[in-house]
Amino acid sequence: MSRPNPTYQDIANYTGFSKTTISRYFNRPDTVTPKNRAKIRHALEVLDYKSNKVARILAKGQTEFIGLVVPNLYLSFYGEILDQFLKSFEKYGYKFIVFSGTGSEETERRYLDELQAYHVEGLIVLSHTLPSIQLASLGLPVVAIEREDLYISSVNTDNYAGGVAAARHLLQIGCDMLIHINKDEIDSRIPAYGRREGFLDVCRRENAEHAVFNYVQEADYADLAQQTAGILQEIIDTYPARRKGLFCSNDTIAEMVLNDLFRRYGKLPEDFSIIGFDGTPSSEHAILPLSTVQQQIGLLVDHAMELLIDQIRHKKETGFAPLSEPVHRMIPPVLKLRSTT
Amino acid sequence: MSRPNPTYQDIANYTGFSKTTISRYFNRPDTVTPKNRAKIRHALEVLDYKSNKVARILAKGQTEFIGLVVPNLYLSFYGEILDQFLKSFEKYGYKFIVFSGTGSEETERRYLDELQAYHVEGLIVLSHTLPSIQLASLGLPVVAIEREDLYISSVNTDNYAGGVAAARHLLQIGCDMLIHINKDEIDSRIPAYGRREGFLDVCRRENAEHAVFNYVQEADYADLAQQTAGILQEIIDTYPARRKGLFCSNDTIAEMVLNDLFRRYGKLPEDFSIIGFDGTPSSEHAILPLSTVQQQIGLLVDHAMELLIDQIRHKKETGFAPLSEPVHRMIPPVLKLRSTT
Repeated sequence: MSRPNPTYQDIANYTGFSKTTISRYFNRPDTVTPKNRAKIRHALEVLDYKSNKVARILAKGQTEFIGLVVPNLYLSFYGEILDQFLKSFEKYGYKFIVFSGTGSEETERRYLDELQAYHVEGLIVLSHTLPSIQLASLGLPVVAIEREDLYISSVNTDNYAGGVAAARHLLQIGCDMLIHINKDEIDSRIPAYGRREGFLDVCRRENAEHAVFNYVQEADYADLAQQTAGILQEIIDTYPARRKGLFCSNDTIAEMVLNDLFRRYGKLPEDFSIIGFDGTPSSEHAILPLSTVQQQIGLLVDHAMELLIDQIRHKKETGFAPLSEPVHRMIPPVLKLRSTT
Repeated sequence: MSRPNPTYQDIANYTGFSKTTISRYFNRPDTVTPKNRAKIRHALEVLDYKSNKVARILAKGQTEFIGLVVPNLYLSFYGEILDQFLKSFEKYGYKFIVFSGTGSEETERRYLDELQAYHVEGLIVLSHTLPSIQLASLGLPVVAIEREDLYISSVNTDNYAGGVAAARHLLQIGCDMLIHINKDEIDSRIPAYGRREGFLDVCRRENAEHAVFNYVQEADYADLAQQTAGILQEIIDTYPARRKGLFCSNDTIAEMVLNDLFRRYGKLPEDFSIIGFDGTPSSEHAILPLSTVQQQIGLLVDHAMELLIDQIRHKKETGFAPLSEPVHRMIPPVLKLRSTT
């Protein structure tokens, strides 16, 4: 077992300097003579002082920590993007302080206040809880992913292009009833709104018959599964003789539908085609490999880190956090055709 | 946009004190007179100084951050326990710096060195990468969950009791061929070893025919799925006429087997019964709700936090991290009977 780090008193005792001098060494090294600095450095080595970066935080305002706020971990997209951010430690050296939202504005604000107090270098925000104007007012470098981003920089998938690709493909394979399942009342300022718009624009342009089924904001996974089962029942009842092409707003819902169909029919019936959205690894390991509009999560993570590091540098140079204008980057999705279409 | 925090210079200018005095206020407040402390406090309010806890870290050695190291996020157990740790912020106030292991000893050690340098208050470790003797030597409060724990405190599920319950149940419902699927060469010092032992002890005691199928350490989810498919094929070929009771070492494997059977037969054949291990919410939402030995994850998290907070208090009082003897707590599992047995 190693000993705890020596205290200022230990270093003062060893060097014969006052504790104030030791404190100045860490906080204002320029106020200590080079000769005395060398003595203290030597003492630290002898006393086996672990590289105490905390002391440098005050001097440099640098912590190498980034706060990462996700809305939940049961939607596979959030688990996967979290995993890829954590693994980016090897590439960028940043460590992540992670918060999984409860939906409570008060808790999330308290959490962000605490992060800020610790001089976290920046924030990556995927949760929808706080409006971007509040996030911008923190005066911290911040990048949003797939959430409302009027006042802050962001990296998003080109959701509209994804909706277009899904509708086109379902028409191409001969579906004559195009169906979209999504959350009701999505704010048009949220990137995911584009999934619906792209899909519906193709349906209208091609005069394809179509319908949208909405679920309400779910409480949890079980609630979402129950709502999805109800929607599938309605689809089966309403369009018995049609070749149904379902575009689900995420893979979790697409997998729920697929499992439900397997439970009913022991297979995916021929009058059903299904496309999800997100394309996390789990979509490939559904009971049938799922066709899906894949978000390029690795690219989202890289671009988000680049934008954030730009802001962090900018803040170090100027003292101010955000760049003058929010920057928005758009990453094209990839249509992954597997076994459900 | 709020202004950045005032600097020591700003506070010095406002109060007329030297920057050294301001520095002492934060780092050694006892060296500043109460009257001057009150003046500085007032200046901070006027200058809208955000509660700068970093300054207090040096004074108190307290950061309210805990490092959390998981081996991966594709096994649902790790995703779920991570989520519950993150949500414990509301209960305990600790924030989590999360690392998802890559299996590289070097990366994980570098990561822990950095965490330590920042005076993280303690560690929760679920990854198997570093031996507990190395973790103990960090001199930090540390609690292990479901990993080798010779030299450090831990909280584990009673894995042996879980294996016993699984075997008993499979015999009770009439299975005449008991099969266990697990990783080969599990170290007997790893808690999960008990799953196999409990299961096999019941088989031997009851003279039940049984077999163990091993997979080798997987590279990722896809590799695990492929190995599992091969094992299932072998089971089908070897025991065609038997009532097979499968106890899988985790729910992810149980779901892979279940999905594979559904793809082959359109249902769970009557000669197959399946029990998993872990009991995360996703096990309930498999294509059939999965029977499983459920780990009480909420209790694991609470007990781990209690043990860690004990050590943190102990370190504050004595300067030394671990309690004299590692403490090991065992949480009983719950046999959840659903639709696959």
